[in-house]
Amino acid sequence: MDGDTLASAGERAALKRIIARLPSAAAIEGPGDDAAVLAAPDGRYVVSTDLRVHGPDFRLAWSSFEDLGWKAAASNLADIAAMGARPTALVVALVAPPSTPVADLEALADGLRLGCEALAPAAGVVGGDLSTGDVLTIAVTVFGDLEGRAPVLRRGARPGDVLAVAGPLGRAATGLRLLFRDAVDADGVPDEVAFGGVARDHPDLISAQLRPTPPIAAGVAAAEAGGTAMLDISDGLLLDAGRIAEASGVAIDLDSGALAEDVERISALAPDLASEAFGLALSGGEDHALLAAFPGPPPSGFRAIGRVLDGSGVTVDGADPSRARAGWDPFDDWDGAAG
Amino acid sequence: MDGDTLASAGERAALKRIIARLPSAAAIEGPGDDAAVLAAPDGRYVVSTDLRVHGPDFRLAWSSFEDLGWKAAASNLADIAAMGARPTALVVALVAPPSTPVADLEALADGLRLGCEALAPAAGVVGGDLSTGDVLTIAVTVFGDLEGRAPVLRRGARPGDVLAVAGPLGRAATGLRLLFRDAVDADGVPDEVAFGGVARDHPDLISAQLRPTPPIAAGVAAAEAGGTAMLDISDGLLLDAGRIAEASGVAIDLDSGALAEDVERISALAPDLASEAFGLALSGGEDHALLAAFPGPPPSGFRAIGRVLDGSGVTVDGADPSRARAGWDPFDDWDGAAG
Repeated sequence: MDGDTLASAGERAALKRIIARLPSAAAIEGPGDDAAVLAAPDGRYVVSTDLRVHGPDFRLAWSSFEDLGWKAAASNLADIAAMGARPTALVVALVAPPSTPVADLEALADGLRLGCEALAPAAGVVGGDLSTGDVLTIAVTVFGDLEGRAPVLRRGARPGDVLAVAGPLGRAATGLRLLFRDAVDADGVPDEVAFGGVARDHPDLISAQLRPTPPIAAGVAAAEAGGTAMLDISDGLLLDAGRIAEASGVAIDLDSGALAEDVERISALAPDLASEAFGLALSGGEDHALLAAFPGPPPSGFRAIGRVLDGSGVTVDGADPSRARAGWDPFDDWDGAAG
Repeated sequence: MDGDTLASAGERAALKRIIARLPSAAAIEGPGDDAAVLAAPDGRYVVSTDLRVHGPDFRLAWSSFEDLGWKAAASNLADIAAMGARPTALVVALVAPPSTPVADLEALADGLRLGCEALAPAAGVVGGDLSTGDVLTIAVTVFGDLEGRAPVLRRGARPGDVLAVAGPLGRAATGLRLLFRDAVDADGVPDEVAFGGVARDHPDLISAQLRPTPPIAAGVAAAEAGGTAMLDISDGLLLDAGRIAEASGVAIDLDSGALAEDVERISALAPDLASEAFGLALSGGEDHALLAAFPGPPPSGFRAIGRVLDGSGVTVDGADPSRARAGWDPFDDWDGAAG
């Protein structure tokens, strides 16, 4: 049984084993028919989709199948949270090589389940598709419920709003930097043995990259607190703040001092990257922190990180961000004990 | 501009060109934010997902990018129709090699648009994801509206019901048979030049395989007529009738005479496959015809094809289907002029 592959077990038997490990969700009709039927109590539903491919998006030398499931859940749940909605359900389509052990696909299902349980306990998998192919690929579509609230879009920020973030910044990117620097062989190819050492030395940063924990519940909290604009930071604070600025037709000024705790934490966890910590906090993606604008003080779970102004573009301490990134020295401009 | 690839144009510019060709749908919030917001007027929504990979699921030597888009739309829309729902929207996640011409991705978008326009004019693309990777892969999740009706599941067929089908049977499978037999090179590898000849000689059958036209509107008609069970035939009448029988806890007897028009048509379009036409009509998938059970006469667009009985399993003319398939000779048992 444990030696079964997708090819030797057959799709039907493999699916039965996988489905048993998936998180379940309340559904009017769940998996097993041509389609699922889900409830939309307030007459609307929120939808986002995302696809990850082995190679460009993840490496099996670094990510376990359980990690893959967790991250697929986490990053998709964050898109729903970023609308101010509560995640309700996912559908998952998977391509795996015929030689894939069914036990690995069970581990992927475990990761989906553990990720949902930790981040959005009401959400579960209500449908899917399993195909064979050469390249492991995971496509997730995720659904959410606005519970009567207006969605919090990117375009609603107004001059005078406080910009605030929920969740740490830069840790996932620091983990990725460590992986590409130290978890590779002499030719720069991701290497499982080298990975073991990095993961042992930097568990928090590697976990931030492979099993991110976006603050899903903060999305609803932001909407309830009157958030005017929100997104999840997938490409870095600077770039994603620029997206809110552009969509809203405003300028955003970030306060470098508000990044002090991120810089300190990154520097403590990876002292040899301390000189890059500010850049990693400012530009590192994939933590899926939630970035939102509020007309008043941000709610619990958020910390103020900048201001919304008239104009366009993003500045840091009122200056061009490239100058901020190049010129900022955590041991000079800021007194944190950075390792 | 026309020489641009995904790599040379960049994701953002490529997406702009692709999105302009996609079908649009009514959405509370469409593409461009973290997620879309869709209306569910009766407080429920129907969801199905499907993923196609170059190699196992399609070949670019045979399918144009426009064909791929059309078929992705058609097969997914059929899953919504098979619930008795009206398709409303799709999200599409795509992996394409960096060398893919943007014009090819525009053609894929054209196919999605043309397929939706032809089969379900209200449905459009409300979100998506574009990634690069080695293997062209298309993941579609599709949504539908039950408009207050109960979903028509697989498990509701009752003894005494009439089994009926909307749409032709076996043509897509006959097209695929021709492709694998004649549209390959000497080593059996799909070949673009050989394909040209097959497509010219058998346009209807090749089109049935590459650009299927499932009877989407018949899904709502079946629900309104009190259909007790329904699915779309993706794996062949015999196998899919077995799914209704198993889910409903009933037996199904198919009437071979009701397949006469399918057998005649296949035989006329591919005379050298006439001896296999019955088997192709009985077991060929991918036409996405709708198979449904009705307590009374089937509605317009459906033709009776069998009966629901007490018991289990599927028979043809009261006998084991393997005997029916092996023993049936269209020129002996049935007087159709089969080419």
